[in-house]
Amino acid sequence: MHFRHYLAILSGFVALTAVATAAHHVPKPSPNGIKFPVGYQDWTVISMSHRVDNKTVRVIYGNDQAIKAIKAGKTNPWPNGSIIGKVVWKEKVAEDWAGAIVPGKFVHAEFMFKDAKKYAKTGGWGWARWTGLDQKPHGKDASLADACVACHTPVKNKDWVFTEPAMLPGRHK
Amino acid sequence: MHFRHYLAILSGFVALTAVATAAHHVPKPSPNGIKFPVGYQDWTVISMSHRVDNKTVRVIYGNDQAIKAIKAGKTNPWPNGSIIGKVVWKEKVAEDWAGAIVPGKFVHAEFMFKDAKKYAKTGGWGWARWTGLDQKPHGKDASLADACVACHTPVKNKDWVFTEPAMLPGRHK
Repeated sequence: MHFRHYLAILSGFVALTAVATAAHHVPKPSPNGIKFPVGYQDWTVISMSHRVDNKTVRVIYGNDQAIKAIKAGKTNPWPNGSIIGKVVWKEKVAEDWAGAIVPGKFVHAEFMFKDAKKYAKTGGWGWARWTGLDQKPHGKDASLADACVACHTPVKNKDWVFTEPAMLPGRHK
Repeated sequence: MHFRHYLAILSGFVALTAVATAAHHVPKPSPNGIKFPVGYQDWTVISMSHRVDNKTVRVIYGNDQAIKAIKAGKTNPWPNGSIIGKVVWKEKVAEDWAGAIVPGKFVHAEFMFKDAKKYAKTGGWGWARWTGLDQKPHGKDASLADACVACHTPVKNKDWVFTEPAMLPGRHK
């Protein structure tokens, strides 16, 4: 075997290994076919909340399209392509400030994907959740959206979104 | 006057107006000379908190350098160039969920700028705050840092930072 053939095969293995490694780190799609939104941890904040009723805290993120819609004041309806993500943690008391509640254990990250046509049957949004630090897809099949839609029905007239974008300089209407 | 001279003068006015308008939108530097960190609203989240003791909620942001340090688990000390920003709102009850506390009126955005040498006299951090939606610089002169340093002294052994980075997939050590 020529040395250059050996090199070609070797580089092929290296490439395959790289692909396999990357694939290993991307969580599996949701059972309804929605793909994991890689990199949501670096998205821009829409708001945050403290659910005092169930002792959790949350940060609500938006992708570029969602943030653009907020800046334009056009979020009812949200434009197609908008993704809203909510990261949920168990609440805990801050280590160094007894009067502050902060994120404790990571619970899950859940998302709404806007596409009025594609997701017409579930309020114009695709729904998905990944649970735990290993980000295991939530639910058994497409019916997983039923619980999401049921809970969000009270805000149907706000395009199914509970979150009020936080007041921020440059973003306040 | 030649038409091209008229055009040159007109375009000069247009350029000056554009500069003046842009300058208008960037808040003035802090009285201690620290410049306003343009675009912090789009930085990555480090954590959040609900100060139940003073009825405010907060999102804590990091610039790229700060987030890189968190991912590497090297935040004591934080590397020079790190900026940590805290946005503070008055708490309010969510419009559509009685059991949730969310951001109400915007109070201020305050920042710690790490430079161990430049800011050696104030714990290795430069301190600054801009108040209200018009982001007015806080304080009269360089002594504004005194109150910051005094309050942060209990966490001197944590490089003066109260915030514990929130547990997130890909960022948890």
